[in-house]
Amino acid sequence: MAEFRRDPVDGKWVIIAGERRKRFVGFHTEPYPETGERCPFCMGNESLTPPEIFAFREPGSKKDGPDWRVRVIPNREPILRVETELEREGVGYYDKISGLGAHEIIIENPSHKQYYSQLSLQNLTEIYLAYRERIMDLKKDQRMKYVLIFKNHGQTAGAMMDHRHSQLIALPILPKQIIEEMRGAKEYYKYKERCIFCDIVHQELSDKERLVFENEEFIAISPWAPIFPFELWVMPKNHRPSFDQSPDQLFGLLAQAVKSAMLKLDQVLQYPHFNLVLHTVPFGEEKCDYYHWHLEIMPRLTQVAGFEYGSGFYINPVSPEEATNWLIRAEG
Amino acid sequence: MAEFRRDPVDGKWVIIAGERRKRFVGFHTEPYPETGERCPFCMGNESLTPPEIFAFREPGSKKDGPDWRVRVIPNREPILRVETELEREGVGYYDKISGLGAHEIIIENPSHKQYYSQLSLQNLTEIYLAYRERIMDLKKDQRMKYVLIFKNHGQTAGAMMDHRHSQLIALPILPKQIIEEMRGAKEYYKYKERCIFCDIVHQELSDKERLVFENEEFIAISPWAPIFPFELWVMPKNHRPSFDQSPDQLFGLLAQAVKSAMLKLDQVLQYPHFNLVLHTVPFGEEKCDYYHWHLEIMPRLTQVAGFEYGSGFYINPVSPEEATNWLIRAEG
Repeated sequence: MAEFRRDPVDGKWVIIAGERRKRFVGFHTEPYPETGERCPFCMGNESLTPPEIFAFREPGSKKDGPDWRVRVIPNREPILRVETELEREGVGYYDKISGLGAHEIIIENPSHKQYYSQLSLQNLTEIYLAYRERIMDLKKDQRMKYVLIFKNHGQTAGAMMDHRHSQLIALPILPKQIIEEMRGAKEYYKYKERCIFCDIVHQELSDKERLVFENEEFIAISPWAPIFPFELWVMPKNHRPSFDQSPDQLFGLLAQAVKSAMLKLDQVLQYPHFNLVLHTVPFGEEKCDYYHWHLEIMPRLTQVAGFEYGSGFYINPVSPEEATNWLIRAEG
Repeated sequence: MAEFRRDPVDGKWVIIAGERRKRFVGFHTEPYPETGERCPFCMGNESLTPPEIFAFREPGSKKDGPDWRVRVIPNREPILRVETELEREGVGYYDKISGLGAHEIIIENPSHKQYYSQLSLQNLTEIYLAYRERIMDLKKDQRMKYVLIFKNHGQTAGAMMDHRHSQLIALPILPKQIIEEMRGAKEYYKYKERCIFCDIVHQELSDKERLVFENEEFIAISPWAPIFPFELWVMPKNHRPSFDQSPDQLFGLLAQAVKSAMLKLDQVLQYPHFNLVLHTVPFGEEKCDYYHWHLEIMPRLTQVAGFEYGSGFYINPVSPEEATNWLIRAEG
């Protein structure tokens, strides 16, 4: 049974998921699947997965049959489980919480190998609409406080499966990074009575030094202090705290911004492995004046980290202005 | 010129070190050196490095000649430079600081390839005494606030050079992880009037579930909420806030504790790549009641992280109790 444990010094929560150890062979990761033949995420192999939770399907097609476009399933080996009771416990000076939560897979496309930048705008739009659908559904469970959505593309970025997918983890506690962003943004708001993200949008649109892409509703920028070379943030231009409360028509424009950013990254960096993470407000804060949802895209080029883990201190060998210079010249 | 940039939202500082980009070939890392022949860190090749800053040497040997045991040199391509003025600047809504600091290499042994666990106790002791020496010297520069010491062993852990070494970075700002540990420890102290690290030592010595090694002055434990499988902390048993203010005789016992921990890790995990990071109090807080220096050793087994970077949320597939179980059965 997995559990959340709180670091007694710095307060961060870690999921200790002993049952996932079958992923280690002598404590090394298992070989990476090479072909799509027996891939449980491929169209036609639906019987190899748990029953689907949600899908965009062709008219007339049936649940757990073929002819879907985007398909959401529970993780077969979930780190966290909805059936768990929420239990908080002290162990001497330490704290733990039972492994309550949810762990789902968003299969992004029926075919095995597709670069993210090659997905159609409709496909990407439906992926983001599926995110929204799942967040709204999981929000009904009062015990949950946050849904973390992320994508690991390629081995260097931590992907275990070759078939393209995103993951969703619903949590009874807030991720540390979100707490810190909320804290920083709130302090800024107290001081200036403006949303810091809105100010960033405004500055990047006027400076243009770190502006990689722009459409009616979104910008893609190299952020001021990126921890990775060629890190990009995709942000709504207008103040939008909550991803799932954004109107329908926004998601097509989000797809366009992400596709353009990915096309540029793929050209300049030759199809890098990357992570993508959605940052949105915690449940119940949908009207927040000071926070603004955004996607962070992190290509994994540097053999990061070493000491970064122990220190929270990052060194980035490519300035965001230089990265922008490369990216604006690429098509996308 | 490198600079520190502050993330406007979460407040973390990133070093943007554009000049290090020569390390990329088409944005990939340069090949890993295979042989020791032209290795600038090997005994006899001293002329290939900048002049040494400090060394433990055989009697009669000369500065920048052979016959040293541990040798400290400036990094040939330093990320930060002491000659820089400390300049703080606002750029629109953003903040930056000039790249003031120091970047040094501690060459741990004259010969090219030595496993850390195979170094003699005297060798390890002198490595730690060299750390202390350098911290005490850099502390004289009033502009500095912290010295970060770390070791990347193996490519997976971010090492660029094969010859074993540690690195030292002196900083005009505090690393985020240290700020957070100080904050958490201070809150605990306000509430309980006890040092949280002393309480951890006490609990681990009585529980024994996560105790891997113990001598008169140190314990090595699997921490309660490790972010990596087989992560270990080596901590003084008594309240010692400052690494460099610790008495001479302590460093031999530290060497014994670290060697033992590393021997066990090498046996169980077959010579894993790892990071080692020293956490100690910021300059000027040497008498701190609530903080306690320690070493963190992080084997790099899991293809960590993906989304961990974007979320501050970690999943660890091996519980610290299970790791301890493996480690106590290994020799060391």
